[in-house]
Amino acid sequence: MAENFRIIDGGVTAPKGFIANGHKDRKYGVTIIASEVDAVCAGVFTTNKVFAHPVSLSKETLKNSDTFRAIIANSGNANCFTKGGMDDARAFVKKASSLLNIPESQILSASTGVIGRKMAMDILNREVEKAYESLKLESNNENAAKAIMTTDAFKKTVAVEFNVGEKVVKIGGIAKGAGMIAPNMLHATMLGFITTDIEISKEELKNSLQNAADESFNNAVVDGDMSTNDTVFVLANGKSNVNYRECIEEFDKALLYISTELAKMIVSDGEGAKKLIEAVLKGAATKEDAKKASMSIVRSLLLKTAIHGADPNWGRIAAAVGYSGAEMDMNNFDIIISSITSGKETYLVKCGEQLADEGTAELKMAQEIMKDSKIRITVDLKKGEFKNTSFGCDLGYEYVRINSEYTT
Amino acid sequence: MAENFRIIDGGVTAPKGFIANGHKDRKYGVTIIASEVDAVCAGVFTTNKVFAHPVSLSKETLKNSDTFRAIIANSGNANCFTKGGMDDARAFVKKASSLLNIPESQILSASTGVIGRKMAMDILNREVEKAYESLKLESNNENAAKAIMTTDAFKKTVAVEFNVGEKVVKIGGIAKGAGMIAPNMLHATMLGFITTDIEISKEELKNSLQNAADESFNNAVVDGDMSTNDTVFVLANGKSNVNYRECIEEFDKALLYISTELAKMIVSDGEGAKKLIEAVLKGAATKEDAKKASMSIVRSLLLKTAIHGADPNWGRIAAAVGYSGAEMDMNNFDIIISSITSGKETYLVKCGEQLADEGTAELKMAQEIMKDSKIRITVDLKKGEFKNTSFGCDLGYEYVRINSEYTT
Repeated sequence: MAENFRIIDGGVTAPKGFIANGHKDRKYGVTIIASEVDAVCAGVFTTNKVFAHPVSLSKETLKNSDTFRAIIANSGNANCFTKGGMDDARAFVKKASSLLNIPESQILSASTGVIGRKMAMDILNREVEKAYESLKLESNNENAAKAIMTTDAFKKTVAVEFNVGEKVVKIGGIAKGAGMIAPNMLHATMLGFITTDIEISKEELKNSLQNAADESFNNAVVDGDMSTNDTVFVLANGKSNVNYRECIEEFDKALLYISTELAKMIVSDGEGAKKLIEAVLKGAATKEDAKKASMSIVRSLLLKTAIHGADPNWGRIAAAVGYSGAEMDMNNFDIIISSITSGKETYLVKCGEQLADEGTAELKMAQEIMKDSKIRITVDLKKGEFKNTSFGCDLGYEYVRINSEYTT
Repeated sequence: MAENFRIIDGGVTAPKGFIANGHKDRKYGVTIIASEVDAVCAGVFTTNKVFAHPVSLSKETLKNSDTFRAIIANSGNANCFTKGGMDDARAFVKKASSLLNIPESQILSASTGVIGRKMAMDILNREVEKAYESLKLESNNENAAKAIMTTDAFKKTVAVEFNVGEKVVKIGGIAKGAGMIAPNMLHATMLGFITTDIEISKEELKNSLQNAADESFNNAVVDGDMSTNDTVFVLANGKSNVNYRECIEEFDKALLYISTELAKMIVSDGEGAKKLIEAVLKGAATKEDAKKASMSIVRSLLLKTAIHGADPNWGRIAAAVGYSGAEMDMNNFDIIISSITSGKETYLVKCGEQLADEGTAELKMAQEIMKDSKIRITVDLKKGEFKNTSFGCDLGYEYVRINSEYTT
């Protein structure tokens, strides 16, 4: 992307006035992100009608307060479907409040881990204390990113900065979430925490985050199920002395970049998931059609299997678009496959005509592209001007090996 | 079910005036079902906007003719995404027409198998001839059911009869479709062919089939993708001398039973898929809500994994209902799990309260029930009077073993 921002180190600690650290001991971990000064906050949450206690609590806190100072999160237990879980969620915030000397009303929280089991409050309290002790010693983005990991294979962190005249605005984020399915983990819960030193109103931040999340986290598919704990927060503390209205476009682009990078890291993670699939749906009659069709592609279990086996099975792509409900004409659409890494690309279908027959140059090129670890599938429905991009991964468990080896 | 019909042998050859046979040699197979006299026909097809040539052709034939004499189907090649595929589909019907001495306009066809490869017309023609030779010798439902199999592990056939006064009405069916995913098979295509000797109008048959299919085939989930070739036909030849209007309720119930049994056989089939999941959603605010929620349960990859591992993970059930879009209150719904075989059942959640905590009798009972091969999950949303039942299977490939053994 030829954007105006630069990628920098430091994740959530990159923007001015933010500190973070975390501590993890076996399953339970705690991450603390704090702002030196009052910050505004926006959040997006799972739309599942069944949701965890910390989601209820954070929604309430977000509604009742105007300024915030900290985000706390724990791994190890999702505090979902638990008796007395709301009390435990409040106790977690209270504990952090007393240590950080920040009112409970200014602390947002999130949880991820096993479901249906009561929070081990003694262990959790110990981890909050340890995370706090670490934070007193130093600000450490790495530890913050690691302490919220559950089945994640790698930590997820990204930050950017851009200039507005002489001044600099920074945005940084960390996330957790992985494609691996484990017993008692409800799903691959996505947590995303973003900090920025921009000066912005609560309402503006809410809009910017909602737009960014719709195009990033809400376009990411790991296993097709939707978690009860998904949470994304953005804290903005104004320390850059740059107001959002001076750089609306730049800020929104940078926030979208941060969100998209975190979402891509999430779908790229997980045992056996070795490939990122980017489904670009264009030429749709409506935005809804574009989203339905691109999501249908990255959700297709059969396509995920084909991608893993490096099989350029464009029929599965066409079929997934076909049953998505999006308006299409099977005699006039394109499918292009490209390697994000090398930039190589080829048509598989052009104006409804299959080009990648056996023995063709197109099929040979497609097979080469499929070996890449980052694959873009572009579908042009030629029905309108709307576009959407979704992110998914191959289905790379052992069963795929078995089924990939099966020969008809 | 305390229904008025009796289960009988013979599948599609059970109703009066129908003969059938089939022949299969390695991948390619052909099934022929014929009526001695003119019959009316109804069909339901995949709603995928991308569909195979035989689907186009059969839709056309069904629209243009009033009476029909035969259904022909082949396995080995789906004739989907193929150049000149429409000509091949017509040639297949033409070949059968000349052998059977039935006009092309009275023959319906369907195909299943690999996609994107041209039909091997020489092999197909040979198989049509062999199937016809077999049919001349005898009527054989077993062969008919076997010749359309692709990755199916077992043949699928069922028939019933019921009395109307002194007379007897029969309905029989065969089907193919399996939960196994194989390269180049687009998906688990479902084919269902039903015969009956009832006397019925084309319009009445169309309505009866649509209603039955909505509650059976359209409630069956194998891998969540939707095939380009799904086809169900019903032929009714009037040979029972009983008119539909004499037994509307009985006939519709029997047709639903046949359709449901075939759909259940399809979802129960497939390598590693050892369990039938029946998701009964009741108390929904609308029929749409009931369907969305029950389908969401049987589609959930995580639930399918849990079922395979005999893990009574009711949280995954609740979450799947929660993200289905159906109206629900997480503090007031029930989840009941039962063994279809033994009739044992227990509440997991009652009025929003989790009962199956560790160490409880409910959890112990649930764990016992989960070992059964036929499991019913009943969810009562307590929001209205609507109900729907969907059918699915566990995800039983090798990867589940690995992931079931993974311990958090």
